[in-house]
Amino acid sequence: MAKYSFGIDVGGTTVKMGLFNAEGEVLDKWEIVTRTENGGENVLPDIAKAILDKMEEKSIAKEDVAGVGIGVPGPVDSKGLVHKCANLGWGFVKLNEELGALLGGIPVRGGNDANVAALGEMWKGGGQGFNSIVVVTLGTGVGGGIIVDGEILTGANGAGGEIGHIHVEDDETEICGCGNCGCLEQYSSATGVVRVANRILAKNQKPTVLKADTMTCKDVWDAVKEGDEVAIEVAEQFGLYLGKALASIACVVNPEAFVIGGGVSKAGDILLEYIKKNYTPYVFHASRDVKFTLATLGNDAGIYGAAKLVLSDV
Amino acid sequence: MAKYSFGIDVGGTTVKMGLFNAEGEVLDKWEIVTRTENGGENVLPDIAKAILDKMEEKSIAKEDVAGVGIGVPGPVDSKGLVHKCANLGWGFVKLNEELGALLGGIPVRGGNDANVAALGEMWKGGGQGFNSIVVVTLGTGVGGGIIVDGEILTGANGAGGEIGHIHVEDDETEICGCGNCGCLEQYSSATGVVRVANRILAKNQKPTVLKADTMTCKDVWDAVKEGDEVAIEVAEQFGLYLGKALASIACVVNPEAFVIGGGVSKAGDILLEYIKKNYTPYVFHASRDVKFTLATLGNDAGIYGAAKLVLSDV
Repeated sequence: MAKYSFGIDVGGTTVKMGLFNAEGEVLDKWEIVTRTENGGENVLPDIAKAILDKMEEKSIAKEDVAGVGIGVPGPVDSKGLVHKCANLGWGFVKLNEELGALLGGIPVRGGNDANVAALGEMWKGGGQGFNSIVVVTLGTGVGGGIIVDGEILTGANGAGGEIGHIHVEDDETEICGCGNCGCLEQYSSATGVVRVANRILAKNQKPTVLKADTMTCKDVWDAVKEGDEVAIEVAEQFGLYLGKALASIACVVNPEAFVIGGGVSKAGDILLEYIKKNYTPYVFHASRDVKFTLATLGNDAGIYGAAKLVLSDV
Repeated sequence: MAKYSFGIDVGGTTVKMGLFNAEGEVLDKWEIVTRTENGGENVLPDIAKAILDKMEEKSIAKEDVAGVGIGVPGPVDSKGLVHKCANLGWGFVKLNEELGALLGGIPVRGGNDANVAALGEMWKGGGQGFNSIVVVTLGTGVGGGIIVDGEILTGANGAGGEIGHIHVEDDETEICGCGNCGCLEQYSSATGVVRVANRILAKNQKPTVLKADTMTCKDVWDAVKEGDEVAIEVAEQFGLYLGKALASIACVVNPEAFVIGGGVSKAGDILLEYIKKNYTPYVFHASRDVKFTLATLGNDAGIYGAAKLVLSDV
């Protein structure tokens, strides 16, 4: 039986890499730079070199490696095909096949980074003990990853779990990064929270510690904890949009748990309160008791999930 | 190799039954009455007797039956457990195990009727050629069944695909059958269409063929086809709620196709026009080209899907 696997999480600026044993413990963790120039032609060769160097350093034979799992910041279909990945400069890439060839035939399995991170959270993070979860990543945008019966819900062209672009507001006039208006991401991401806060501040008469234009998402949640009335109004709006959207998602997939991660989730349990109180009134009764937990792996979720992709029996 | 399977679709008044060969052709089709009295204690024995009688009539040996698939009108989890099924009078029922015992050990696999019907539409109906679809059943209510990579998305407690209870309207005051307000089912089911039409008629000044209180959902769609302005307004509302809800669902599961069935779908292709033109502006670009088709199996979708449950290699 193979003794090792590699979990790779490719971002727009760095590639996070992890060496795991068959029990899913991290033996080593490091990063390399993502070279996106020239259509990202160096990305996979750089990764392959880093893996082969690490194998040499640790005297690991090829037959002792179960495989290499890899998450990339764009849609990847169930055959490991990437049609376009703007963040890496890629056009069409046969991810599994090309990286596998560079590694002399070591099995490679790729997926979308948010989906792969969701698998990581279920395996070793906030979703442990569950088999069907929705991981909601509240960062610069709102990402998602859906795991059904232990498997990633990839979607027909790799866009399963793109929950940040659920339409939640008809009266929005600003355009979302995706080209639509009124997407969840415009309200419940870190940038969305600040945007909502600035809108509320512009009309506000009440005393508040929040300062227009300079405040961060963390400032808002810190103020919520201090009982700042204006910040609480922002938190209510955040929770209303997100709670309703998660209620819709629950009608579709009926998960065991929602796992909330990303930078915004550093606010802690108070975030879950605002989500849950706005989720419960809108959800179908069969999903009323779905659990809410916080993600625990932070930036390592991607390498864990990638390693799990090729360690499916662990 | 087994030569036959049975597909059973249990409704609140009748049980539809089908005998299939291994190629998935219906060899015989019949119905029995659903006896729901005394906690529905006769339902499974009646079904078992009907199957065993049919086997005797056709001289089919037990070892020639691959299995019996069965859809019931309530949540069924992935282990075949029913926790409650009000339509049949059932409390907790071990569906697979109990019916299997009554059949002398023939394998039984049960599921929710809407989910099972979705599998039938993918196998032999409007979803043929696809592997990941969302079937939307517009009848008295709005039901749904989601198939991902050929498998039913059951959900943690059997409530996957309960899309009729997605919240779509904040300003609703009437209560839905589920206890919430503003569910999709309140606008886009057959009863929902009539309800919306009556509301519009109450405020209407324009000439119309629609008659308050006596009109049916079919009357509304017939009038739409005749160019009746008021009926068209109703169709626009129907399409707006449903199109937006399907756009949300697409962000979650990214299917290959939506298959529209149920009584309302008898209106035909015009229905798809109203859905699509309201879906496209709200959906994430990766799901913009999802196909829309009409269901074709009608009331037989349930027996086909049930037979398919136990014929997974066909």
